[in-house]
This record gives sequence, C-alpha cells and structure tokens, in this order.
Amino acid sequence: MKAAYYEGNRTFTVRDAAIIPPGPGEVRLQVAYVGICGTDLHIYHGAMDQRVKTPLVIGHEMSGTVAELGAGVTHLRVGDKVVVRPLDNRGETPADRGYGHICRNLKFIGIDSPGAFQQSWTLPAFVIHQVPAQVDLKLAALTEPLAVACHDVRRGQVRAGELAVVIGGGPIGILVALVARAAGARVVLSEVNEQRLQFARELGFEAVHPGQIDLPAYCRELTEGRGADIVFEVSGARAAAATMTELLALRGRIVLVAIYPKPVEVNLFQFFWKELQLCGARVYEPEDYEEALRLIAADTLPLARLITQVGKLADLPAIFRALDAAPEGMKTLIDCTQA
Amino acid sequence: MKAAYYEGNRTFTVRDAAIIPPGPGEVRLQVAYVGICGTDLHIYHGAMDQRVKTPLVIGHEMSGTVAELGAGVTHLRVGDKVVVRPLDNRGETPADRGYGHICRNLKFIGIDSPGAFQQSWTLPAFVIHQVPAQVDLKLAALTEPLAVACHDVRRGQVRAGELAVVIGGGPIGILVALVARAAGARVVLSEVNEQRLQFARELGFEAVHPGQIDLPAYCRELTEGRGADIVFEVSGARAAAATMTELLALRGRIVLVAIYPKPVEVNLFQFFWKELQLCGARVYEPEDYEEALRLIAADTLPLARLITQVGKLADLPAIFRALDAAPEGMKTLIDCTQA
Repeated sequence: MKAAYYEGNRTFTVRDAAIIPPGPGEVRLQVAYVGICGTDLHIYHGAMDQRVKTPLVIGHEMSGTVAELGAGVTHLRVGDKVVVRPLDNRGETPADRGYGHICRNLKFIGIDSPGAFQQSWTLPAFVIHQVPAQVDLKLAALTEPLAVACHDVRRGQVRAGELAVVIGGGPIGILVALVARAAGARVVLSEVNEQRLQFARELGFEAVHPGQIDLPAYCRELTEGRGADIVFEVSGARAAAATMTELLALRGRIVLVAIYPKPVEVNLFQFFWKELQLCGARVYEPEDYEEALRLIAADTLPLARLITQVGKLADLPAIFRALDAAPEGMKTLIDCTQA
Repeated sequence: MKAAYYEGNRTFTVRDAAIIPPGPGEVRLQVAYVGICGTDLHIYHGAMDQRVKTPLVIGHEMSGTVAELGAGVTHLRVGDKVVVRPLDNRGETPADRGYGHICRNLKFIGIDSPGAFQQSWTLPAFVIHQVPAQVDLKLAALTEPLAVACHDVRRGQVRAGELAVVIGGGPIGILVALVARAAGARVVLSEVNEQRLQFARELGFEAVHPGQIDLPAYCRELTEGRGADIVFEVSGARAAAATMTELLALRGRIVLVAIYPKPVEVNLFQFFWKELQLCGARVYEPEDYEEALRLIAADTLPLARLITQVGKLADLPAIFRALDAAPEGMKTLIDCTQA
C-alpha cells in the first residue's frame, strides 16, 4: 500500500509502506477520503516540528471501511463504513476530571502518532464511529470538522431565534454557521476575504466585512437594540479578540474556537459591565461525532458544496504546495482508494 | 438634618439640608450606618467627576429605619429596619432582556442621584429591602457589599468541595471568600498586602502572596493535580488577568468581579486548551440581597470583624482623608444617627 510521509522542510513523499495487521482491540481500515485540515498545513509549514516526529503519515479528517478486525473487536464488521475520532486518551488520569477529549496526556492521532494519508490504517477500535450505509464516503470525510462545529454550538447552548455572529469564514467557521443555523439561530458571518464572503453568501448567510460596516451597530439593528446573543470567535485575529465583546447583548456569550498562540488584549470591562460569558471549545466529545454523523445522514446541510476539490494520494505533495499558494478554498479531499 | 456633600476637589462639607417629604410610592428613611466603598473613594479622588454632578450626597452601603411613608406604600411600616438596593432601573427597555440590574440606562443611587451620607433619605420604595428586627443595624450596613459577594458566588455556581481561589483581599474579596466558604468551597486567598494577608488568615483562610509561592503549583497540590475549580478575580491587577488561567483545572471557571478600565492581555490559548469559562459579575439582583440578609440574620459569617471603625457624620471629611492615606483596612462605617 501507499502512504504519504511528511518529511519536514515542506516536503511530503508518497511511497510504499507495510500493511500493519490489527492487534487485539485494534481495527485495520481501508482509507477512502482524507480532508486536509489547517493543522496539516501548519505541520507542512514546519510550525509543529517540535511535536511531529518525522517521517510521519499525518491526516485526521477521514472516512473509510473496515478491512480487518483484531481479536476481541465484535461490534464492527469487515466492510462497515467508518470514521475515526482521532483522540487517543489512554493517558487520561483522575486529574482530568473525566474530560478525556482534552486530557493532559492526550495524543492526537495524525499528529502525535500515524495518521490517515495512507491506504491502510491500523488503529485502536475505541476511536471508530460507524457511518450509516447510505452515506457517501466523501461527505463522511467531513465528520471530523463537522464534529468540531457541533461541539462549539453545543458548548454555546445556541437556542432557536438567537442572533449568532461567526467571526471567521474558513471551513470551521462555515461549519459552525451551518450547525448554528440548523439549531435555529440567525447567523451573521464576519470575514475579511472576498472569496470567502462570496462563498458564505452563496450558502445563504448574511456575510459582512467588519472593516466595511459597523458590525456592533448592525447586530443591534438586527435585534431591536439588544446586540448579538452569541459570538463564535473562529478567526484567531487580534482585532477579533479586541472587539468581540462589543457585538454582544447583556449576558451575551462567546465561544472561543480559535487558537491564539500568544496572549492578546481583551476588553475585560465589557465582561464585567454586560455580564458576558466566554467559554473555550476544543475538539469534540463522542456525542459530537454522533451528532455530526446524524446531520450528514439527514442530508440537511449543503456539505457537498464545501468540498472544493478531490485529488489523488500520489498528487498530495503538489496539492499541499498549491494550497499554500491559494488557501481561500474550503475543503480539499485526498482520495486514497487509488494510488 | 445634616448631610455630607461631595463638592469636588477632594472636599466634603457637612451641612444642614432640608428633609424631603416622600411623594407617592416613596419612602423617607432615617439613615443609621453607611459604609464607605471603594467607589466612594474613587469619587473623592475625582476619578468620576464627569459622572458625579456636584455638590452631591454620595454613599450607597447603608442601613436605617423607615421614618415616613409616601402615598400608596403599604408593605412597610414606620420604624421597620431596612436597607437600600441602590439600583434605579426605571430606564430599563426590552433591549435589556430583563437584566434590570445591569440595564443600559441604569442609574446608580449615590452616584447618579443623592446617596446615603445624610440623616434623612427619600427614595422610591422599590429599592427597599426589609431587615429582620433582631439584626444589628451596623451589620445590616454590610448588606450591599455582601450582596455583591452573593451575586459573584451565585454566578460562579460554586459547589461544595470545590477549590476556589479569590484573587484580591479587599472587602469584596474577603466577602466573596466568606460566601464561597459558606457554600462549601475550600478557599485560597491571593493578596500582596501583608496587612490584608494577615487579616484573611485571622478569618481562617489560607492566604498566600502570589509573588512568594508558585500559586498554580499550589492549586494542583491541593487538588491531586487537577487545579482550582473556580477563580474569583477581584483585584483588577494586570498580572492577575495574565495568570488567572494558569490556576484552573480543565473546564475551570473564572468569575470576573474586578473593573479593568483598559483592555489587558489575557491568555486565550488556555481558554481553548482547557475549555475554561469566564463570566462577568456586576452588582446584584434582588435575590442576592435576600441571600445577603439571610446570611446576616443567620449570624454564621464573622461580619462584625470586617468593621474596622465607626465614625460620626461630622467627621466624614477627616475620615476620607485618613482612608486615603491608609486604605488597607476593611470597612469604615459612618454613624448618621447623630450629627
């Protein structure tokens, strides 16, 4: 079988690799489609070289089928459509208070251990979720980022009729907007890239450039003066952190999805004055995967439109180079069914 | 009757003033004791001169008795012991979503309209809470700051057995610590002033200087590695805002009580990584007053020890000058029963 190895120095090589038979409690998957995540691009840029032990097969947004079962795995069958929840929490301790998905010794599969950009992938069975048989495996490859969005919306306790502002219109921002809208919220998407603004509008969102309108005033205008009920900060921009509090109504909520590598200025006075709430949201819990799979199976979200392109595993090195030059698209999938 | 007027320019004058008869729906109080709040000192320093229209009687932490009832006020009797919840929310609109205590047109009585440093005070009846007859009026004058603490602890949803860190050991910090302890939390108080550290220890708290110990490590030590469940940020110090996230366990909570006039750096990465939560807490709602009065009547908290001194209304100008020079004490009360 073929596998794509990240070698460091902005380099992938696609080469032959040995099939690993599943041990007890493990499953071997035949990988179908694997999405390229922002984190994969970070790795490609060398930003995570201290953590990633090269050469490493990366990738964690995937779909596939069960190829082989290890001893003791009885709840799956060969041929089942599946996705992987790439969180290895076997290092969890009582100090993690039961929050295995963010436990201190968490290993992220595809960063800290081999990932999905290969044709055959052997994993512990506890990370597998079954996919309903009728679901297209291309759409199933969106389960992981969609589960992020489901987690974010669940953390934010979005209620029908609320005004939600999503700051940042990349793939996660768009998915958060879709899930929040499905939960009954009115969604305004804030984004600075024209191509992404246009895409959001094609999906039916009110999408605005925060440098071109007075976004706090617009939020009040939409809500008879109240302001937004909830803000999802997905951009990671300093300006977003500085101004997100201005969009909100009294007791409004912020869900912090973006990764801010360094401390940034926040208007804590607004938190006090309006009794705002902020909560961080990271990855997903098993129920978020189940919700994402339910949404995909129900076919209510226009998820197929998020798939910008599908390329071959052999072309992965060229695809990463191209994405680096033009990152505005949504989701690129790597088809691993053929080398 | 006598009243103390803030005249601007670090000056109070105590002089005769006319008694104002209560109009319909109003009550005239005979003021007993009035606490001096940090906000009163801010006003004295001129920091709120743009908002405070001089000359003005300020003061809002008080106790007293009903002296005279206006037309239509039937639920009170002359002689009843009472306290005032100094929030005038008559400008509330639907855009405030029912949060009258922080509504946009809120007028704070004693800042935006005449306050309590006088012998006779006429107010709308809706701001009055009755005090059980057996309660000492000196202790009742602590109702307002104690209600702040009750609100903070309620916003933080403190549960028995949790580790709570209170950052800042002034009067509000101490009251938050007392209420959190009464709710069953184990409390660590972080403070840099030796006199305040000593006072907190006399009340039985573990009180630590964050520059002298590794506070995050100490929190983990107390919790089998988890970290604190909740942090009350009462200090307003930039260093506290920068480091509060380090004290917390996964999914830990921060209640932001302090007023930060300017944006400050916050470690948003920690919010993401540990799925932390932060909520602002400002003043109080009616139920917080009821809880504060219940705690005072039950006599379970060592509130009398927070009363550092009691002075006469005639001495108010000198008392403000002295507090300015030595602000480390807890609560100074002004006795308005004699001029």
